Amino acid sequence: MREDIQALEEIFSRFYEVGMTNLGGVTRLGYSEEEDCMHDIFIDIAKEEEFKVYTDEVGNTYAAVEMSNREYYLIGSHLDSVINGGRYDGVAGIIAGILIMKWAKEDNLGLPIRTVAFRCEESSNFGRCTIGSSLITKRIGRNEVEGLHSKDEIAFGEIFKKRGLSMDPPQISNVKQYLELHIEQGKVLEEHGMKVGIVTDIAGPRRFHVHIHGKAEHSGATPMNMRSDALCAAAEFILEVERIGKDESHRKSVATVGVVNALPNVLNVTPGEVMLGIDLRGIVIDSLDTMEKRMREAVKYISTKRNIAFFVEQISAADPIKLDMSMQKRLVECAEHLRIPYKFMPSGAGHDAMTFAEITKTAMVFIPCCKGISHNKSEFTSLESIYDGARVIYEYLKGERDRYDFSEKWKDH
Amino acid sequence: MREDIQALEEIFSRFYEVGMTNLGGVTRLGYSEEEDCMHDIFIDIAKEEEFKVYTDEVGNTYAAVEMSNREYYLIGSHLDSVINGGRYDGVAGIIAGILIMKWAKEDNLGLPIRTVAFRCEESSNFGRCTIGSSLITKRIGRNEVEGLHSKDEIAFGEIFKKRGLSMDPPQISNVKQYLELHIEQGKVLEEHGMKVGIVTDIAGPRRFHVHIHGKAEHSGATPMNMRSDALCAAAEFILEVERIGKDESHRKSVATVGVVNALPNVLNVTPGEVMLGIDLRGIVIDSLDTMEKRMREAVKYISTKRNIAFFVEQISAADPIKLDMSMQKRLVECAEHLRIPYKFMPSGAGHDAMTFAEITKTAMVFIPCCKGISHNKSEFTSLESIYDGARVIYEYLKGERDRYDFSEKWKDH
Repeated sequence: MREDIQALEEIFSRFYEVGMTNLGGVTRLGYSEEEDCMHDIFIDIAKEEEFKVYTDEVGNTYAAVEMSNREYYLIGSHLDSVINGGRYDGVAGIIAGILIMKWAKEDNLGLPIRTVAFRCEESSNFGRCTIGSSLITKRIGRNEVEGLHSKDEIAFGEIFKKRGLSMDPPQISNVKQYLELHIEQGKVLEEHGMKVGIVTDIAGPRRFHVHIHGKAEHSGATPMNMRSDALCAAAEFILEVERIGKDESHRKSVATVGVVNALPNVLNVTPGEVMLGIDLRGIVIDSLDTMEKRMREAVKYISTKRNIAFFVEQISAADPIKLDMSMQKRLVECAEHLRIPYKFMPSGAGHDAMTFAEITKTAMVFIPCCKGISHNKSEFTSLESIYDGARVIYEYLKGERDRYDFSEKWKDH
Repeated sequence: MREDIQALEEIFSRFYEVGMTNLGGVTRLGYSEEEDCMHDIFIDIAKEEEFKVYTDEVGNTYAAVEMSNREYYLIGSHLDSVINGGRYDGVAGIIAGILIMKWAKEDNLGLPIRTVAFRCEESSNFGRCTIGSSLITKRIGRNEVEGLHSKDEIAFGEIFKKRGLSMDPPQISNVKQYLELHIEQGKVLEEHGMKVGIVTDIAGPRRFHVHIHGKAEHSGATPMNMRSDALCAAAEFILEVERIGKDESHRKSVATVGVVNALPNVLNVTPGEVMLGIDLRGIVIDSLDTMEKRMREAVKYISTKRNIAFFVEQISAADPIKLDMSMQKRLVECAEHLRIPYKFMPSGAGHDAMTFAEITKTAMVFIPCCKGISHNKSEFTSLESIYDGARVIYEYLKGERDRYDFSEKWKDH
C-alpha cells in the first residue's frame, strides 16, 4: 500500500501546478492550453509506464496496457476544470486508472484495459458539458457543438479546425465495459462514514427560468394592499420548490432555486421583476414529472392569488440514466471482499459515464470529498480514498479476467 | 383657468429637454450641469415675470414677488432628478410656485412670498438626499457631506469649492411658513379619485442590510436534508417582512425587501450567501419599533430553525415627521371652498419639506400621478392637477394675508 500511495502522490504532484490561479485554485478549461498541458503530462506518465498512447478524432487521450483488437475495459474521466476549480474533480479518476493499469501490468493480468482522459467535461468554457465523451459516443453531433463559442469568443469549429480535430468522429467501438472513479462532489459518503459509493443512477436535470412580472413602485408611497411585489411572489415560490424537493427526497430527488435576479433591485422601490433559475434533478422519471407538475401548479396558484404574471421557460431536460445492475452487484462484492465500507447511491451531478451508459455496460465508483466541497480550491480527497476506489475497481477487473472469453474472435477496431 | 394651464404648459415645456436621455427620461443629477441648466431656466422665467432672484450659500435658487426683510412664505421643491427619471418629480412644485406668485402679483396680494428650487434632493448623485435644503436649514452640516463623492467620483468638497459654495451656511431665517406641492409618487389619490392630498406626516425610514450565510453546495449532489440554503432562508424572511408590513398597515406603515443579491447565483449550486436590503417606513414611531422588533425576531427564529447565520446591519434610521396641524386644517378648508376633492394622507417618500418642519410651520400638498409611477420616464401628472394643487395653496395664502401682521417690526434678514 505504502508504495501505491507514494506513486499516487507522485502522479498527482505532476498535475498540481497546471493552470494554478492566484486565488489558489486551478483553471484548466476544455480545449485550452492548460488542458493540453494536463494531457501532455498524462501522456508522459503513460509512456514512462510503457503504456501505449493515442488520441482520438476529438482530442481525447488514451493509454493502454497493451494494444489489441479485442474488446477492452475502459476506465475514464477528465482533466479539465471549472474556473478557479479544484485539483481532484476528474483528475482522481485518471490517476486511479493509471494505478490500476500499473497493477494489471505488474500482475500480468492479461485483460485488455485502457484509461481515457476526455476533453472538456465541464461546461465552463462552452456552456456545454461532457463534449469529448459525448462526441465520441455519438450522444451529440456536429449540430450540438458547431455554434458554441469559448469564453474568449472563439467558435468551436475554429478551435477544432486549428487543432486538426473532427466534429464527425466515428463512434468509439470495442468498449466492453466503461468504469469511472470520481469524487462524490457531495457529502453523503462522508456523513455516512463510507469509503466508496456504488453509483446506481445518474440524475436527469430539468432546468427552468421562471420570470415574475409585478410592479416596480415607490416603497414608501405604495401601501401594502396596493402592491404587486415580484420578490414576495418569488419568495413564496422558492419555499414551494424547497417543499417539492423535500416531498420527493424519498425518491432521491432534489429541487433547487440557485439563481435570483431582481429589478430594479434598489432599496426604495418594490421589486417589479424577478427571474429565478430552477434545477430539478432525480433518478426516477415519475418523481421528476411530479416535481415539474407541482412546480407548475405552484406557479398558477401564486400567480392567481397574488395577481402577478409568471412565465415558465424550460431551458433543458435530460432523462436520468440507470447504470448497469450486474456491474453494481459485482462491485459491491469486491468492496465487501476488500472490507471497504460502501454505499449504493445516485449521482446528482452529470459525468462522462452518462455518455457510455447508452452504448455499453457502465459503472461508477464514488469516493468521498471533504465536506462535499467541489469546484473550488478547497476541494479535497485523500490519496487513500483514491487508492480505495482503485482497489475496488481492480478487484472487479480481476473477477472479469476469469469471465473474459479470450477465445472470442478479435473484433475489428 | 385656460390661460393658467397655458402658462403652466409654457413653463413646463422650457424645462422639458434638459438632461433628456435616449431612453426617453431625464437625468438631472444634483450639482451637475444639467441641474444648473434647470436653475438657469428657473431664473430666466422668474426674471421675465419681474420677480427678484437670488441664490444662497449652497446654490439653492430663490424668486420673490418682492424683497423685504419681513417674514415670508416659502414655496419650495427641487429641479434635480434621478437617473433617467421623470419630468414632474420636483418640477411640479416649482412651476406651481411660479404660478402662485404670478397670481399674487396680479392680485396685488401684498403677502411676502418666495419660491425656492433646492439643490440635490435626490440621492442619485451622492447617495444622500435633500442636500440643498438640509444644509440651509442646518439639519445637516459639513461633516455629513464633506466625505461624499459624486457618481463620477468627484469629492463633494471639491465641487463646492469649484462653485464657490459653502458647506457652512448660516441657517435660513425669516421663513414664516414653508409649503411644498409634490406629485404623490404613489397611487393612493388616483385609486380614491381625489385631486389633492393634504400631507399629515412624512414617514421615517429604517433601513437594513440582512446578510445570510448558508453553504454553497452542488445542487445535484446535496440531498435536501443536508442543505444550508441561504435563499430558502431568505425567502422565509421576505414573506415575514411582508407579513409585518401588512400587520402594521392599519398604522400606515410599509415594509419592503427591495434588494436581493445571491452568491454564487448559478443554476447548479445551492445559494451560499444572500444579502437583502430592507426598508421599513412608518409615521408612528411605535409601529416602526414593532416592525423592527418583529423583523429581528424573525431573523432569530429562521436562523435557529434552519441553522443558518443571519447578520443584521442597520444602514439608516430617521424618525417620522409631523407636519403642522393648523396648516393642514386650513388647507382642507381651502380645498372644500374650491370644491376640490381632498384626502388626508401620509407621505411615504422623503421631501425637502422634512428639513423645514424642524425649523418652521410646514405643510405639503400632494397631487396625483398616473398609476403612481415615478422615477421613470413614464411619470406623469396633468397640468390640471398642478393647477388644482396651486389653487389650494394660493387660497390658503389669501387667507394668510388676512392674518398677517403687517405692523410687525421687520426682522433682520
